Amino acid sequence: MPGDAEATRRRLIAAAIEEFAAYGLAGGRVDRIAAAANANKAQIYHYFGSKDALFDAAFEAMVTEIIADVPPEADDLVAYAGRLFDNYQRRPAVRRMAAWRRLERGTSHPPLGAIVHSNRTSIRAIAQAQQAGKISDRFAPVDLLALVLVIAAMWPALTHELTAEVRTHSKARRRKVITDAVSALIAV
Amino acid sequence: MPGDAEATRRRLIAAAIEEFAAYGLAGGRVDRIAAAANANKAQIYHYFGSKDALFDAAFEAMVTEIIADVPPEADDLVAYAGRLFDNYQRRPAVRRMAAWRRLERGTSHPPLGAIVHSNRTSIRAIAQAQQAGKISDRFAPVDLLALVLVIAAMWPALTHELTAEVRTHSKARRRKVITDAVSALIAV
Repeated sequence: MPGDAEATRRRLIAAAIEEFAAYGLAGGRVDRIAAAANANKAQIYHYFGSKDALFDAAFEAMVTEIIADVPPEADDLVAYAGRLFDNYQRRPAVRRMAAWRRLERGTSHPPLGAIVHSNRTSIRAIAQAQQAGKISDRFAPVDLLALVLVIAAMWPALTHELTAEVRTHSKARRRKVITDAVSALIAV
Repeated sequence: MPGDAEATRRRLIAAAIEEFAAYGLAGGRVDRIAAAANANKAQIYHYFGSKDALFDAAFEAMVTEIIADVPPEADDLVAYAGRLFDNYQRRPAVRRMAAWRRLERGTSHPPLGAIVHSNRTSIRAIAQAQQAGKISDRFAPVDLLALVLVIAAMWPALTHELTAEVRTHSKARRRKVITDAVSALIAV
């Protein structure tokens, strides 16, 4: 792709993440995305094909960055959960995009290869750490990974009512709850 | 409220839960809700005032039922988490409504009194159980409650990719992951 086209594509992805994180897939508007990216709607359909495909491309771009920033690290699941939390703090769009995706995209489209690969790497490494006796084997590897990922994303997942109760929690306190919880789950 | 009006209101709430769980607040249509409830749009605005208020009333009705079915039970947080899971299984609309609410209603409206009350009852009881040495005090009561609630709702919160990995999990296995995780968190 020539440099200008690649730059336009990148601006469209960045604008799509902002728009879809705020309004979701049905509520997000391609004309607003085009305007925010200094592009036009025809370019969106040229590069991505459809609004659904733009949503998927935006989600994939975001997740690929997170996986690069926070690679699977089963030798230290506590540190992994903490780093995921740090990353979600820096990218508030992430948890919203993931939630909209669950609600609006369902499970009828193919799973995203980058996430499947990252998860399988984690699952294999957890199994090895369990076989070596480094962490508890009370959970199957896939179940322990599920727990770690859900706990690392716990704070934005609370109801409004519980959010009100924890409004004054510092970032350090939120992080420590996550790392302490993962420590308790893997304690031998 | 006369019997007919109360029955209409109940049908509208039930139809609103179905519609909003499927399409969210912005995507949910009051004309479909009215049709599904054998009512009309004027009745919706008469009884509830607005689409936002109907969404809030539907969420409140659902949560009030769950709190009645699964009252706070800090003396046995493991059983509490298991019963919440059972309840979410029976009411698949719950987690979707809660997710749409976080995304679309934000935190600018007042917290719902029934949930605040239920949470505070749990927090007090957890503090007492910790003081009595029955459960670990490694987490502050509000943080332990947050963990229990997030873990009880963990399965519908997974990404599409992790959902694919756990597709064959039985209900019993999903439940046991939740209760084992809470056991590990409170172990003295």
